[in-house]
Amino acid sequence: MQAVHNIPEICAQLGITDVVLSPGSRCAPLTIAFARHPGIAVRTVPDERAAAFIALGLAQAQRRAVALVCTSGTAGLNYAPAVAEAYFQQIPLVLFTADRPPEWIDQLDGQTIRQTDLYGAHAKGSFTFPADTTHADAQWHATRIVSEAIGLAQQFPAGPVQVNVPLREPFYPKQGEELQFGPVKVTRELPGRPQLPAAVLQELHEAIRGTSRVLVVAGQHPADTELLLALQQFAATHHVPVVGDLIANLHLPAAATYDQRLRPLGRQDVFMAVPEPGLKEALKPELLITFGQSLISKALKLYLRNAKPAQHWHIQPAGPVADTFQSLTKVVRMEPVDFFTALAAAPNPLSKREELNGSVALASGTPSLLERGPWGEVPAQDATRVAPRPQQLGEPVRLSWPTPDADPAKAAYLKPWLAAESWATSFLQDFMQQPSQPFNEFTAIYRALQHLPDRTALHLANSMAVRYANILGVPAGRTVEIFANRGTSGIDGCTSTAVGAALAQPGRPVVLLTGDVAFFYDRNAFWHNYPTPNLRVVLLNNHAGGIFRLIDGPRQQPELEEFFETRQPLRAENTARDFGLHYQAVSTFAELESALPVFFAAETGAALLEITTNSATNAEFFEHYRALVRTSFSH
Amino acid sequence: MQAVHNIPEICAQLGITDVVLSPGSRCAPLTIAFARHPGIAVRTVPDERAAAFIALGLAQAQRRAVALVCTSGTAGLNYAPAVAEAYFQQIPLVLFTADRPPEWIDQLDGQTIRQTDLYGAHAKGSFTFPADTTHADAQWHATRIVSEAIGLAQQFPAGPVQVNVPLREPFYPKQGEELQFGPVKVTRELPGRPQLPAAVLQELHEAIRGTSRVLVVAGQHPADTELLLALQQFAATHHVPVVGDLIANLHLPAAATYDQRLRPLGRQDVFMAVPEPGLKEALKPELLITFGQSLISKALKLYLRNAKPAQHWHIQPAGPVADTFQSLTKVVRMEPVDFFTALAAAPNPLSKREELNGSVALASGTPSLLERGPWGEVPAQDATRVAPRPQQLGEPVRLSWPTPDADPAKAAYLKPWLAAESWATSFLQDFMQQPSQPFNEFTAIYRALQHLPDRTALHLANSMAVRYANILGVPAGRTVEIFANRGTSGIDGCTSTAVGAALAQPGRPVVLLTGDVAFFYDRNAFWHNYPTPNLRVVLLNNHAGGIFRLIDGPRQQPELEEFFETRQPLRAENTARDFGLHYQAVSTFAELESALPVFFAAETGAALLEITTNSATNAEFFEHYRALVRTSFSH
Repeated sequence: MQAVHNIPEICAQLGITDVVLSPGSRCAPLTIAFARHPGIAVRTVPDERAAAFIALGLAQAQRRAVALVCTSGTAGLNYAPAVAEAYFQQIPLVLFTADRPPEWIDQLDGQTIRQTDLYGAHAKGSFTFPADTTHADAQWHATRIVSEAIGLAQQFPAGPVQVNVPLREPFYPKQGEELQFGPVKVTRELPGRPQLPAAVLQELHEAIRGTSRVLVVAGQHPADTELLLALQQFAATHHVPVVGDLIANLHLPAAATYDQRLRPLGRQDVFMAVPEPGLKEALKPELLITFGQSLISKALKLYLRNAKPAQHWHIQPAGPVADTFQSLTKVVRMEPVDFFTALAAAPNPLSKREELNGSVALASGTPSLLERGPWGEVPAQDATRVAPRPQQLGEPVRLSWPTPDADPAKAAYLKPWLAAESWATSFLQDFMQQPSQPFNEFTAIYRALQHLPDRTALHLANSMAVRYANILGVPAGRTVEIFANRGTSGIDGCTSTAVGAALAQPGRPVVLLTGDVAFFYDRNAFWHNYPTPNLRVVLLNNHAGGIFRLIDGPRQQPELEEFFETRQPLRAENTARDFGLHYQAVSTFAELESALPVFFAAETGAALLEITTNSATNAEFFEHYRALVRTSFSH
Repeated sequence: MQAVHNIPEICAQLGITDVVLSPGSRCAPLTIAFARHPGIAVRTVPDERAAAFIALGLAQAQRRAVALVCTSGTAGLNYAPAVAEAYFQQIPLVLFTADRPPEWIDQLDGQTIRQTDLYGAHAKGSFTFPADTTHADAQWHATRIVSEAIGLAQQFPAGPVQVNVPLREPFYPKQGEELQFGPVKVTRELPGRPQLPAAVLQELHEAIRGTSRVLVVAGQHPADTELLLALQQFAATHHVPVVGDLIANLHLPAAATYDQRLRPLGRQDVFMAVPEPGLKEALKPELLITFGQSLISKALKLYLRNAKPAQHWHIQPAGPVADTFQSLTKVVRMEPVDFFTALAAAPNPLSKREELNGSVALASGTPSLLERGPWGEVPAQDATRVAPRPQQLGEPVRLSWPTPDADPAKAAYLKPWLAAESWATSFLQDFMQQPSQPFNEFTAIYRALQHLPDRTALHLANSMAVRYANILGVPAGRTVEIFANRGTSGIDGCTSTAVGAALAQPGRPVVLLTGDVAFFYDRNAFWHNYPTPNLRVVLLNNHAGGIFRLIDGPRQQPELEEFFETRQPLRAENTARDFGLHYQAVSTFAELESALPVFFAAETGAALLEITTNSATNAEFFEHYRALVRTSFSH
C-alpha cells in the first residue's frame, strides 16, 4: 500500500490542499492515507454528486486543483455532472476513483462497474493506477501518473482528470500502525506563457488602429484586476467599447478608472432588446475581439451572430476555440492580459517589448478579494492554505496614459454604445425604483441585490437567477465577485458549488441566488458536517420551473404546467430545519426589507431567505418589463 | 419534426407504455410528442438521477422497457448511475437524450456537452438520431434506429440503450396545432430460444447422474414460478441441493412442493458462518451448476471459491458470463427453465423432446403476483397497461413425478445441506424470538418482516438492509417478491426504484427496507406529483453508515466515525412532512409492535416508519449474534 499512501504526499507537494471524499469500503486505503496526511484538509460528503460540486466550488474559489476520493461502483458516476461542468468551466479536479482490481471486473462482485475512462469526453485524461506495485517500475509508474494527472488537470485549459485506483484487500493498516508518506519524486509543471512574434503583434496593432468599429466582448472569466486594468488601458488607447456579462467579472472596481466612459458595459440584456434597426446598425462591429468563455445574454449573442463582423479574433492561449458567432477568423494564442497590454501600448511599442511587458504587472491599490473582512477571521489552518491570487500586486500604476486616440470614426462608434448603456442604466433604475411596482421575483431580486455585503462571492444558479442578475447587474462601488456554473449551465450542482465556495473562504460572504427547482434538486449540498456560517441562500420559490412561462413556445402549449413548469409544492422550511439554516420566508416588500438586514448580518450564520412569488404573476410582470424596454428607448 | 413525433408511436407499437421525463427546453418536441400520444403514460420527475431509477423500478416491475426523456447538457449524465445499474441488472431502458445539433457542440452554448455515446461501457448501444429529416432516407433512418434501439434494449441480456436526439428550433408546434403520430414502419424482434443438441443434453444428463456431489446455486433472478417448478423437478429427480439468496426469489411458494426436503435452501449466511471444517468438507460440490446474477452471501461466495469444484456450469442463454467462483468450465447457452426441465426428465428423455418441452409450460395453480388484492383496485388506465407476465399459466401440473433417485451417494451429499439449513432456521427462530433480546436494527427488522403483507414487492436497499434480510429471510407462506439493485450494489437509487415499483403496481404493497445513508441520499425519489399510496418505507436510522462498524478493518481505525461511518444527524420527519408521507418514529419493541399494524394497513397510504437505533449497540449485538452462530452449531 505504500504507493497508495504516497498519493496524498504527491498531491500536497504539487499544491493540492483539499480533498473531498465520500465514504466507502473499497476506497479505505485512500481515505486513511488522505485523512492522516498532515498537509491535506479532508472533508467527507456522502452524496457523490454534491461532493463533486462542492469540490468544484472549492477549486473555483481557491483557484487551484482539488482532489476527490470515492469508492468503486456507481459512486464515481455520480461525479459525472460536476466533471462535465469542470471540463467546460476549466476547473481542475483530480478524481481518485477506487476500483476492484482488473481481474474482478464483470465477475458479479458488488459495486463493480467499468471504471476505466469513466468520464469519456468530459475528462482531460484518465489514468489507471497499477494494481500491483511490488515491482520497482510499478512504483515509479504509480508515482509518475499521479504527478502527471495533477499536472494535466492544472495545465491551461484546466479541467478534470481521473485516476482509477484498483485496490486489493487488505484495505486497512493494522491497529496503531503509522503510515509513511514518501519520500517521493514528483514532476512539476512550469507553465510557459505564449508570446506572439513582434511582427505579428505589429500587424494586429495596425489592424486595430485601422479599423473604426472595433468591439471587445468578454465571455465568462474569473475576476482578475490585472486583466481589468489592461482592458481599460486598451479601451483608453483605442477608444473601443468593452462589453461583458456579469459572469465576465468586468464590473469589479478596478484600481484606477481613467474615464467613466471607458468602463466596461454590462446592460446589453436591456439595450439589445430594443427593436431599433438604427441602433443595431450603429453598434455593428467590423472587428470583434473576444476572450473568456460563454455569454449569458442571448440578445447579444444573437445580435453578434447576425451582425457578421468581417473579422473576429478570439484571444485564448491554448485549447479548442468556439466559433460562437460564426465569424471567427483569428485565434490569438496569448493570455488576454498580455494581448490587451501589448496592444494598448503606444503606436510603435514593439521595439520596446521588455518595457511594455514590465508594465503589465503594475496593477496596484486593488484590494485583494480574499482580504479578511468583518465576516470573521480566516481560521489559521485555512489561512495557511490560501495561495496568493494570480493577480499579484506590484508597483503603483502610472496614470499618465497616452491621450486617447482622437480618431473621430472610433469616437463615432463608441458613442452609441455608451448612449445605449447609459439609457439602459437609467431605464432600469427608474423602472425598478417606482414605488408602485408589484412584488415578484424580478423586483424582489433587485432589492435583495442592493443589500449585498462588500466582498461577496455571489453565486448565480441556473436557470432564471443568473438571467435576472445579468439584466440587473450588481450595485456599483462594491466588490462582488460572480460565479455561475455556465460551463454546462446545469441546475444540478449550483447549491453544492456555493457550499464549496463558502467552505473555501470562511472570511467572506458567499451568497447564492437560486430558484426552487435548482435548490430542491441539490439539497444534499447541505448534508455533511462542516459549518458554513458565511453562506446565504436567497431562494426564489415560484413552485415551478418558472422559466418556461417566460419564454415563447412552452407558454402557449397545453403541456405548460404539467410537463414544462413541473409545479412542485415544496417550501424550504423543512430543509432549513434539517440543516440548521436560519430561515426567513417573505412574500411582500415590507417583509423582504425587514428580513434583509438580519439575513445578511454576519452574526446570523448560515441562512436561507425564501422569497415566495407566483409564477404567473412573475411572467406577467416580466412581459410588462420587456414591453416597456421595447418601447422606451430614446437616443 | 414529424420524425420526432413518430418516436412515441414507434415506442407504443413496440410495447413501451411508460415514459419518465424531466423538464427542459431542448427536449420540448419529445416532451410534447410523448405527452400527447394516447398510448403512453407520461410522468415527469425533475431530478434526472431519481427519474432514471424510477424508470428502472417501473421496468423491473412491469418486465418491459421504459423510456426516458431529458434535455441536453448534464441532465443525461444524472441518468448514469441508473444506466449502470440497468446494464448490470439487465433491465431495458431506452434513453432519449435531447441534444443541440452537431454544428453547435463545443460552441459555448448553454446546456451543451458531448452526448454521443454518453454512457460508454454501461449502455448496450448508443444511436444518433438524424438532425435533419427532410430527406426520405433520413426519415427511414430515424424510424429504423428507434426500432433498433428498443429491440436492442429488450434482447437478452436486456439493458439500457441511448438514442441521442439533436434538435433545432423551433421546438414548439403552433398554438392549437395537432400532432400526427405515424404511420410508421416498425421492426419487431422475435426472440429465439436456444436449444442444445440432443447429444449434448444427454452428456450433461449423464454427468449429473454420474456425479455424487452436485450443487445448484442461484444468483439474483426475478421471481419465476415456472423456473421454480422446473428446479424442484430437477432437485427431485437428482436429489441435489438448491441454494439461493433472497434476491434469487427461490423462496416464493411454488404451485406444488413435492417434498419439503427439496425446497430451495436460503440460510447460507448463517450456516456458512459456522467454522466447522467437517461441515465445510461435507458440503463441497464436485459439480456446481449456477444461473442468474450476483450472490449477496459473502460467506457462500468465499466458500465456493475456496471449494474449487472440479466442474462449474453456468446456465445463461447469451451474453458475457462471470467466473464468479474461479472454477467455470462450461457455459450452457439455454434458458435456466429449459435446462432444468430438460435435465429433470427421466433417464432417456431425449428421444421425446417434444413431449418434454410440452411439460415445461405446465406450471399452474400459481397465483399471479400481480393479481388485484385488498390493497385496492388497479386504476383502469393502469390495468390496460399491465402486460401478462412471462410465466403464463397453463394446464395443471401433473404431480406424478418420477420417484426420487435413490442413489445413496447423492442422498449422503444432500443430507448435510438439509441439516445445515434446518439447524440455521431453528437457530435463527430461537435467537430472534428470545423475549430478552435488546432493541436494535437486526431484531427490529426481524419483527418488521413478520408483518409484511401477502403479495408484497419487497425492495431491499444496499448496504445493510439487503444483508440483514438475506440472513433472516421472509416469513414462509406469503408471496413476497424481492428486488434489490444488486447490479452495481449502489445506494444511490434504492428509494427511487421502489417508488417506480409502487407507481407500476398500484394494486400491490411495495415495501422498501432501507438505511439512513441510502434514504437521505435519494430523497428526491419523492419529489414529483404522483401518489404512491401503496408505498411503505421502513427506515433504519442509526445516523451513520453503520456497516463500517460491522466489518473488521474500519472499526479498528481512528478514522471510523468521521471518514467511514460519516455520522449524520438527520431524522426523516421533515422529509415525511415535505412529501406527505404518514410518519411514525419508533425506538422500542413496544412502539414498533404498535406501529406496524397501522403502518401496513392499506388505508394508511404512503408511509414512512423510522426505526431509530444506535450504531454502536447494533454492532455489539450483531457481533454477539455472529459469535453465537460460530459456537452453536451441532449436527
